[in-house]
Amino acid sequence: MSVKVTKEEALEYHRSPNPGKVAIATTTELNSQRDLSMAYSPGVAHPCEEIRREPELAYEYTAKRNLVAVISNGTAVLGLGDIGALASKPVMEGKAVLFKKFAAVDSFDIEIDAKDIDKFCEAVKAIAPTFGGINLEDIKSPECFEIERRLIEELNIPVMHDDQHGTAIITSAGLINASEMMGKKIEDMKVVVVGAGASATACSTMYKELGVKNLIMCDSKGVIHKGRKDLNKYKKDFMIDEALTMEEAFTDADMVLGLSRPGTFTKEHIALMSEEPIIFALANPTPEIFPEDVREVKPKAIVGTGRSDFPNQVNNVLGFPFIFRGALDVQTRKINMTMKMAAARAIADLAKQPLTPELKESFGDLSYGREYIIPIPFDKRLMVEVSSAVANAAVETGVARIKDFDLEAYRQKLATMV
Amino acid sequence: MSVKVTKEEALEYHRSPNPGKVAIATTTELNSQRDLSMAYSPGVAHPCEEIRREPELAYEYTAKRNLVAVISNGTAVLGLGDIGALASKPVMEGKAVLFKKFAAVDSFDIEIDAKDIDKFCEAVKAIAPTFGGINLEDIKSPECFEIERRLIEELNIPVMHDDQHGTAIITSAGLINASEMMGKKIEDMKVVVVGAGASATACSTMYKELGVKNLIMCDSKGVIHKGRKDLNKYKKDFMIDEALTMEEAFTDADMVLGLSRPGTFTKEHIALMSEEPIIFALANPTPEIFPEDVREVKPKAIVGTGRSDFPNQVNNVLGFPFIFRGALDVQTRKINMTMKMAAARAIADLAKQPLTPELKESFGDLSYGREYIIPIPFDKRLMVEVSSAVANAAVETGVARIKDFDLEAYRQKLATMV
Repeated sequence: MSVKVTKEEALEYHRSPNPGKVAIATTTELNSQRDLSMAYSPGVAHPCEEIRREPELAYEYTAKRNLVAVISNGTAVLGLGDIGALASKPVMEGKAVLFKKFAAVDSFDIEIDAKDIDKFCEAVKAIAPTFGGINLEDIKSPECFEIERRLIEELNIPVMHDDQHGTAIITSAGLINASEMMGKKIEDMKVVVVGAGASATACSTMYKELGVKNLIMCDSKGVIHKGRKDLNKYKKDFMIDEALTMEEAFTDADMVLGLSRPGTFTKEHIALMSEEPIIFALANPTPEIFPEDVREVKPKAIVGTGRSDFPNQVNNVLGFPFIFRGALDVQTRKINMTMKMAAARAIADLAKQPLTPELKESFGDLSYGREYIIPIPFDKRLMVEVSSAVANAAVETGVARIKDFDLEAYRQKLATMV
Repeated sequence: MSVKVTKEEALEYHRSPNPGKVAIATTTELNSQRDLSMAYSPGVAHPCEEIRREPELAYEYTAKRNLVAVISNGTAVLGLGDIGALASKPVMEGKAVLFKKFAAVDSFDIEIDAKDIDKFCEAVKAIAPTFGGINLEDIKSPECFEIERRLIEELNIPVMHDDQHGTAIITSAGLINASEMMGKKIEDMKVVVVGAGASATACSTMYKELGVKNLIMCDSKGVIHKGRKDLNKYKKDFMIDEALTMEEAFTDADMVLGLSRPGTFTKEHIALMSEEPIIFALANPTPEIFPEDVREVKPKAIVGTGRSDFPNQVNNVLGFPFIFRGALDVQTRKINMTMKMAAARAIADLAKQPLTPELKESFGDLSYGREYIIPIPFDKRLMVEVSSAVANAAVETGVARIKDFDLEAYRQKLATMV
């Protein structure tokens, strides 16, 4: 199912019927002088006064309740690099569209013309009252780490840099299922991470949380180890003691996660790995190595890529719409590791369910196995499973404002929204 | 046609069907893997690269083309004062709704948690790439003047503080028609402005531009004159030489504009005015003086208020939706005085047209005269008349990016949008 899109088709899609992909809709009646008096002066004074008295009532009387900002400065846009705020707008509108279509989350894109950490954070903090959550997007590393840390600390709405945590959650789901399928304990696995940017860092942190003890990270200069003098503080978190070569890193490794460029590891590297390795080759649109090349040297490997035309597509849309859906619905102040882990486990579990007839019709008779370790993005059950898991974890870890949470009732409500 | 709204009705209107009044809509298809590849990765890279190459193509490939931000810090919210950013959100959503309903402008509210001029401007400038125009709202005076000045100067999209210029434009339309109706030259009129805030200042500036030479502004301490030591630089622009009393100011005055509080001028003041005075008593919801009280002492007076239950309602919705509609459509960099003046004249001219059958049905058999010097907000012809006048003025004064502007074709296009 390869999907080719020409430049002219893509431009035309963005041009018509109107420029761009998002618009504003009104949700209340506005057909009479009376409606006008409710929506605006004088009636609007009542909700204003209520919110002034009790700020949390903003969740009851304004769109904040269901509103996520997709915020970027355009410094690390998918495959394009630092193209600036304005030129990143089509991507951010696209992300907003995915929020709406996949999880009925109202999402509005904000492009911020500021590369400096302080300036960027000041702008986001200033506009934060508008929103119920913030999805940071395509911000370059290492600035993204400090930006996210600061905003999480200083704001009382959930903030998540999806480039970091989205991939971490989806590949963790894959790791959980693949390890089980191969009968390996996560604690005993040797994992190589090729790439040391935002996403690689977040994945590595989450894998450690999942139990991985032997994790080797590599950047463009090779293995990250104590002998290197060129490491920033984020890379230092992952340095190992020995100055291994890439070949030594790959030897007997059980998993490799590629978040780098085509060719950073090859058939020769894969050949050094264990018999049934997990290979996530997520460089986009051309993976580090193609599935057929992996299988030449490791026929029993489980391979995932970022592409829809190969099995096991690692696509963030499996996560972020539903994570924010759950976070908004219980009004969390944070998206913590427990919530992210709950999302990963919910995604992993869903892959074990038989496909619905509707999905079978479009995607063939997939069933849980090497070619299907994570669900496909169009699986509508993701909303119920992932959002409810995230919301429940938020309530259980005490970061939700909503206290009277009924998991079963919430799952039923989500099912009606799908 | 008095419209009473109870607190509970207003709260319920804001609570259901979902909290708030705005939502995000998607404007393109997103039902297949192919659509996903257009809207997001990899297809979205094409419009990004085009915009990077040529920034103005953002108007062709993103929602910027039709998108106005309604931005406030909640420091001077209609009748409520400084209630802060969050509590102002229902008003700003309401304004966004009016933009959409009256002129099909997509408008998104941003509440900024910053009272300081520098911080506020930094935040607005940072997020500006997102939008095609900025409507500032409910920002307290005198900060609003410097904020607007700075943003107009530093941004390349139109910025307008509607509290200032909206009222100025609508009352200027009223002044144009009323002076004509009474056979007085604007140049010869004596005008008293009671109130010295954002709106009063902008009205006074526009009246001078219209030709008024004898204008007396009063604040809570009385007439603004050279002898006063308590004036900020904005008030100083309007000080007169003599230390007049309020009574002296009103003597033989042809017009009074009230933008203050109930009771700041009375029947006794009105009695001092010329025989056929114009009275705009715009304090909301209770005017400075009621029309029936004016008419007791000046039976031939023309009276306007901010209320929908009296004739001649001065309502900003006659202006801002259509001003931004025109500004967006020719991609102006500024909204200049010529454009504002064109809007005022278009509004004034429309009042001279007979009501449409549809309007007659709802509003009775109004015709141009003392009780009908400005159109009613639901007059759908406002879009064609005001937007085309504003767009044309932008092109003629050289602030529009669109060069090949055809006024007649544009008017026809607007007519189809109504």
